[in-house]
Amino acid sequence: MQIADLETPVPVIDLDRVDRNLEAMQDYCDRHGLRLRPHIKTHKLPHLARRQVELGAVGITCQKLGEAEVMADAGLDDILISYPLIGPAKALRLAGLARRARMSVAVDSGMALDTAAAAAAASGAEIGVLVEFESGANRVGVGTVAEALDLARRAAAPPGLRFDGLMTYPLGAAAAGFIAESHAAFALAGIEIRTVSGGGTPTAWTAHETLGLTELRVGTYVYHDRATVAAGAAALDDCALQLIATVVSRPTPDRAVIDAGSKSLSSDLLAPEAGRGYGLLLDYPDAVIVRLNEEHGTVDLSGSARKPALGERLRILPNHVCVVSNLHDAVATARNGRVVGAVPIAARGRTT
Amino acid sequence: MQIADLETPVPVIDLDRVDRNLEAMQDYCDRHGLRLRPHIKTHKLPHLARRQVELGAVGITCQKLGEAEVMADAGLDDILISYPLIGPAKALRLAGLARRARMSVAVDSGMALDTAAAAAAASGAEIGVLVEFESGANRVGVGTVAEALDLARRAAAPPGLRFDGLMTYPLGAAAAGFIAESHAAFALAGIEIRTVSGGGTPTAWTAHETLGLTELRVGTYVYHDRATVAAGAAALDDCALQLIATVVSRPTPDRAVIDAGSKSLSSDLLAPEAGRGYGLLLDYPDAVIVRLNEEHGTVDLSGSARKPALGERLRILPNHVCVVSNLHDAVATARNGRVVGAVPIAARGRTT
Repeated sequence: MQIADLETPVPVIDLDRVDRNLEAMQDYCDRHGLRLRPHIKTHKLPHLARRQVELGAVGITCQKLGEAEVMADAGLDDILISYPLIGPAKALRLAGLARRARMSVAVDSGMALDTAAAAAAASGAEIGVLVEFESGANRVGVGTVAEALDLARRAAAPPGLRFDGLMTYPLGAAAAGFIAESHAAFALAGIEIRTVSGGGTPTAWTAHETLGLTELRVGTYVYHDRATVAAGAAALDDCALQLIATVVSRPTPDRAVIDAGSKSLSSDLLAPEAGRGYGLLLDYPDAVIVRLNEEHGTVDLSGSARKPALGERLRILPNHVCVVSNLHDAVATARNGRVVGAVPIAARGRTT
Repeated sequence: MQIADLETPVPVIDLDRVDRNLEAMQDYCDRHGLRLRPHIKTHKLPHLARRQVELGAVGITCQKLGEAEVMADAGLDDILISYPLIGPAKALRLAGLARRARMSVAVDSGMALDTAAAAAAASGAEIGVLVEFESGANRVGVGTVAEALDLARRAAAPPGLRFDGLMTYPLGAAAAGFIAESHAAFALAGIEIRTVSGGGTPTAWTAHETLGLTELRVGTYVYHDRATVAAGAAALDDCALQLIATVVSRPTPDRAVIDAGSKSLSSDLLAPEAGRGYGLLLDYPDAVIVRLNEEHGTVDLSGSARKPALGERLRILPNHVCVVSNLHDAVATARNGRVVGAVPIAARGRTT
């Protein structure tokens, strides 16, 4: 079957590019003595997670327990939940996971630590703890080394928990400063930092410049997208997932409507300097997907000398590829332009 | 079970409010002699579609064939696909539907008409045709009455198709003008316009003011959301779906992070004058959900005198509720604050 025979809209991944992307990042980590712990949030596919481990990854990263449950079901082990788990319901599910896989969690509060401790107690298994710190995302994470040290001390105390180290996102000067200061303060306190985990595909290739980093968490590198290309972390030819859409209406000379809306691409935009619109039309780079409704993508063709015809199929590079995996139940796989399979996206939609 | 016992993030619908919303819109249509053809894209639930028909709806509207297949499987009949279907793959699936349910489609091109004709021929069943016209959405739809008339003539010609009338979105002065002009031109041509279908919850309560309208297509009214409240089509107390989230991090006095990101709420924003942020925190209306990552919602508390605590559960009114249904595999149902069930969202994720 050819890609042209697939009903649209449909996400298609090029397995050769996937292979190349997975190998390139593992090579990079190997060269620089970094452990790679890929984030499965981008592909959400157990068989690609297994491939990442075969290539040398030390384990995987999941954002939600539901993702980890899918991966543990598929035999994956050594799973980091890089997200604050809060409360008894999460403790119960974490305990279930800890009974069958090595688990670690990121925490930035005593309540998250208590949740992990409850899970360890309920499961009888040891759970690793990374203390997440703030390094520019202005999202979660402790803001000071003193807070990190306090949580580390508490993580080292109760039976069942094991303090492993620190975690952050993104990498950069702020992260490096926090790591250096932590090493000094933790050494004085007699607490060993065995792992310092940093994340983000956009800055991945310079991760080794962050002194003290031991582990890289990256997800998007498996497919890349318009954002990682804009960040300089990939070339267009590295991008392994395309959404194929069809022009379903051509109401005016300068307007095309495609059958990919926010239900297929999400409403995620890039920073204005990184690119206009809701995705890059690879064959019409001067056309702009100016608006998405749920099922309609409205394309402004006024800047494009060539104009696609009604019924024409268009290849779209998504702005943000992780959300595309989440929006589709399955992805088609291809090699050399031929479709070789269709894979259910097993960990999509795991919101809890 | 109480709503407070549900693991978060979780969408919860208040069935009493749903009942009230469904009845109010049917009453409105009955009072004004409008047929109601609710759009299932908002709830994506067969049992609510059946309830809409029991209350008096003449049939349902679906955006994609996959949604219609789910509804036909559940016994729904008289289904309008209000979306241009283009090409042989769509014709094949439309034929499959036409064999087991009365089907009609919206078209705005000869190619869409050919697709419907191919489906009619393959199924041996008659398929109704509405010609979609432009009335301000700048999306799909013919721009002139002459184009509409040309498509209507062609729809009336081949065996298997039945020209039913016109369709548009949104309603307003442009729609009314087009309808009036069409009635004159079509009468001269000897073609009857039996149906004029108009859509959109924001303008639903004034739909009867559009002269010539015979049918109302609305979806959001079942739940309402922050957008329909901003449009004046509903009060906060009419809103039947809330997303319940938990505060999972409180890194600074003015920042909370909740476990609902774009995977639960989508990245859809409102027009600036309609409301800030990615949803309304019902218990902290002065707090703003300023940023969504996939799993993190970052809340700016600087404008809110009261601040939620770590671990606290927050009720969120989504900006756009249809996308929330699409993002979750199931929705919890409640009456009088008590959970009475959990319903799989059968037609979610039907992108094709």
